[in-house]
Amino acid sequence: MTGLVEQLASIVGALNVSAGAAIAPDDTHDEALTGHPATPLAVVRPACTAEVSRILAVADECRVPVVARGSGTGLSGASRPVPDGIVVAFDRMNRILEIDTANHAAVVEPGVTLTQLDEALQPSGLVYAVYPGEMGGSLGGNVATNAGGMRAVRYGVTRHNVLGLELVLPGGQVLQSGGKYVKSSSGYDLTQLVIGSEGTLALVTGVTVKLVPRMAHTATLLAPFDTLEAVAGAVGPVLASGATPLILEYLDALAMEGITRAAGLDLGVPATVRSGATAYLVLVLEGSDPGRVDADAEAAASLVATLGALDVYILPPAAGGALVTARERAFFVSRAAGADDIVDTVVPRGALPAYLARTATLAAEHGALVSGCGHVGDGNVHLSVFLADPHRRRAFLRAVFEAARDAGGAVSGEHGIGVDKREYFLDLEDPAKVALMRRIKAAFDPHDILGPGRIFSGGAGSGDAGTSEGASSGDGTHSGPEAVTR
Amino acid sequence: MTGLVEQLASIVGALNVSAGAAIAPDDTHDEALTGHPATPLAVVRPACTAEVSRILAVADECRVPVVARGSGTGLSGASRPVPDGIVVAFDRMNRILEIDTANHAAVVEPGVTLTQLDEALQPSGLVYAVYPGEMGGSLGGNVATNAGGMRAVRYGVTRHNVLGLELVLPGGQVLQSGGKYVKSSSGYDLTQLVIGSEGTLALVTGVTVKLVPRMAHTATLLAPFDTLEAVAGAVGPVLASGATPLILEYLDALAMEGITRAAGLDLGVPATVRSGATAYLVLVLEGSDPGRVDADAEAAASLVATLGALDVYILPPAAGGALVTARERAFFVSRAAGADDIVDTVVPRGALPAYLARTATLAAEHGALVSGCGHVGDGNVHLSVFLADPHRRRAFLRAVFEAARDAGGAVSGEHGIGVDKREYFLDLEDPAKVALMRRIKAAFDPHDILGPGRIFSGGAGSGDAGTSEGASSGDGTHSGPEAVTR
Repeated sequence: MTGLVEQLASIVGALNVSAGAAIAPDDTHDEALTGHPATPLAVVRPACTAEVSRILAVADECRVPVVARGSGTGLSGASRPVPDGIVVAFDRMNRILEIDTANHAAVVEPGVTLTQLDEALQPSGLVYAVYPGEMGGSLGGNVATNAGGMRAVRYGVTRHNVLGLELVLPGGQVLQSGGKYVKSSSGYDLTQLVIGSEGTLALVTGVTVKLVPRMAHTATLLAPFDTLEAVAGAVGPVLASGATPLILEYLDALAMEGITRAAGLDLGVPATVRSGATAYLVLVLEGSDPGRVDADAEAAASLVATLGALDVYILPPAAGGALVTARERAFFVSRAAGADDIVDTVVPRGALPAYLARTATLAAEHGALVSGCGHVGDGNVHLSVFLADPHRRRAFLRAVFEAARDAGGAVSGEHGIGVDKREYFLDLEDPAKVALMRRIKAAFDPHDILGPGRIFSGGAGSGDAGTSEGASSGDGTHSGPEAVTR
Repeated sequence: MTGLVEQLASIVGALNVSAGAAIAPDDTHDEALTGHPATPLAVVRPACTAEVSRILAVADECRVPVVARGSGTGLSGASRPVPDGIVVAFDRMNRILEIDTANHAAVVEPGVTLTQLDEALQPSGLVYAVYPGEMGGSLGGNVATNAGGMRAVRYGVTRHNVLGLELVLPGGQVLQSGGKYVKSSSGYDLTQLVIGSEGTLALVTGVTVKLVPRMAHTATLLAPFDTLEAVAGAVGPVLASGATPLILEYLDALAMEGITRAAGLDLGVPATVRSGATAYLVLVLEGSDPGRVDADAEAAASLVATLGALDVYILPPAAGGALVTARERAFFVSRAAGADDIVDTVVPRGALPAYLARTATLAAEHGALVSGCGHVGDGNVHLSVFLADPHRRRAFLRAVFEAARDAGGAVSGEHGIGVDKREYFLDLEDPAKVALMRRIKAAFDPHDILGPGRIFSGGAGSGDAGTSEGASSGDGTHSGPEAVTR
């Protein structure tokens, strides 16, 4: 494979290819709690679309598996390397190409991070509304996983906030999809198809995002409840009231204790209330007029008080902001506490009370400790799972995902399937739909080089080798169970 | 073909298949101003998904082209029959299966009309926000064309308001895509791919739509401007102000005169102002609190007054509603006036002033009379074109679409490509993207039976035969120019 590394070096320059021991440990994994780091044949860092095109021409010609890497902040192994493939890392493609205030749009390279974009947008009075919590995430990675986050209840997820993409297909063809316009009925929407495809259809080399006016004022409500079901049950009436929360989250008592302790945050909830609280609702409103925001917060507080809350607090602005920042860190708190996995199932909002009750029952049955929080306004539940044995954990997770499906939901609301949730996805999804997805993938990637082992792919270097604990097909060969129906 | 009709009759009952002279004239066309009615082999009216599945099994087996028909209100020929194919008409599948207030969702069959759904939703306090103006349109047809309309500036188009689809593939396979959840990162988004595919990928037999709270109060502003450029230029500042209009339209003086005269509507604009007005901005705000809506209307009026408006009127509620209703009828007014075609190009919002100026120049150069109105908040321009000669009209439209593309836009914002805009789409779109779309279509429809001649399809019964005036490939054979690259 020296030849391959040399070919890649001839495209991007020797300094921008690493192989063997020169590969940085950071490039061998993402933030998923499962799976093991893996060292690829090479990591290549293109500087522009033309270089990406030439890389994909070589990889397609040589049938070398390709894994895309943004910031490596994913939670499902989608950017984890495969030993017989290369990683295309986008951190050098980190330019904000245009901030177009007239069209409320920005054009960025895929390696631009959310923090970088947000800082650049500050003077414009505009904001890119998607807020997955991990502000170090890249726009390219956000597109790949269709990132969601706390503001999705107000502004939607990545697919609702991306207007266009520049794509490179295996073989090197470069396509422009969409643009700065907000609607189109002119052929298939390739932008929407690629968003959420986790690097399996094309590499994204440019992203045109939609911007919205940045609101100057927020108000934050905090309401403890005595049961999980009650907090989930409050969501419907809040949204039916016509309130348009920027953020609508729940945290169970364990999650709240974890994030506030980690942040050293005292929200002023009396110990007597805290001791009776099983879960908390967090509601943030925003607007340009402080008087209206405050009035809306009062109205929402009155409503929430009638929905079974033990009490309702309108937090001072600093505490409200600190709570949201602390909530952002929930993943890292769970990881530090030793969580064995994190899942993010989604169900219809109205199914949440029953679904949360069901997961509690399943946890008890399987001997798992579970701490939960999530985007309750979207029916999107993040569960930190503490259950060390991989086989028992797998059985528990299978049951949790099955319960989500049976409630009319899906395996992942925003983290993606990646490598680590693939077995559950394949197990629970309609095989006819998976077969159709494979045919769509073949329309983009006939030699099956992109995203080996991601979502459903079982082609060359399927990513099973030593990366998936307790999986049934961890034998490192190229014949996962799903390859049969290919 | 008696055998085919008999087979279809055995599926849906003889009363629900018509052939030959028994085919109703209504079933031979849509509302497109171009193209000629065409009589298919048969029109079949299934009552349920299972019947649609059996129809597509037969059609796929026999390689019979299939055209889907909702209410036949489309404007680009997408539901126009082909002589060697069948029409699957969905007017019998018109049940509202569920209104789920807890999840703000409704599940409907594709033949349900927007009027029918809106009436059924009244008691719930919820609304399906998409409002293409033609309330007789079906939900299935809206999905096929990714219908937009006046409220898109606030709520987005069909693809932003559909959560899930039931699909039938050629061969008869039935798939469920999406559901009542609002976000997912669990495999490719088949829902988004099928929306806007104009009947070329699958037949839609069920639609799960998102509902939002119905707002009780609106306020309508009307502002005459002395130039088209000035009205288009006002859009950016209005949206940048943080106002969230429900409706943001423009009408040129000709369009305004046409719709008000047809509706017998006097908006109280003095003749002296009218005589100097080249175009009008219509802005509608909505909310649950009448005081806030009125205050927002006053603020918007003050802003618009600084943006070059000749005057600004806040209309009384009845007049505001009547103006929106009259605007809905713009297509029919144009048709009655003898318009030869209607196009709905879309450009980035900020490009509108230059684009409108460019279309005026092109109209003068080509000797076309053009009257325009449209969803200016979306950059979506509807032009009624009066130019009888098909060859000259074709040259003019080609130039109009090319100018939209060069401005960073697309051929159609919401009407779709259908049959009648196909030649322009194929002429102006990147052939590599069209080739990819064809490969995607083959993943769904390997025998190319669905939507012959729609968008880019050039397979069996490509729909060219006698339906496309002045087209270069109107020879009725199966080898359109694009078939070569298939």
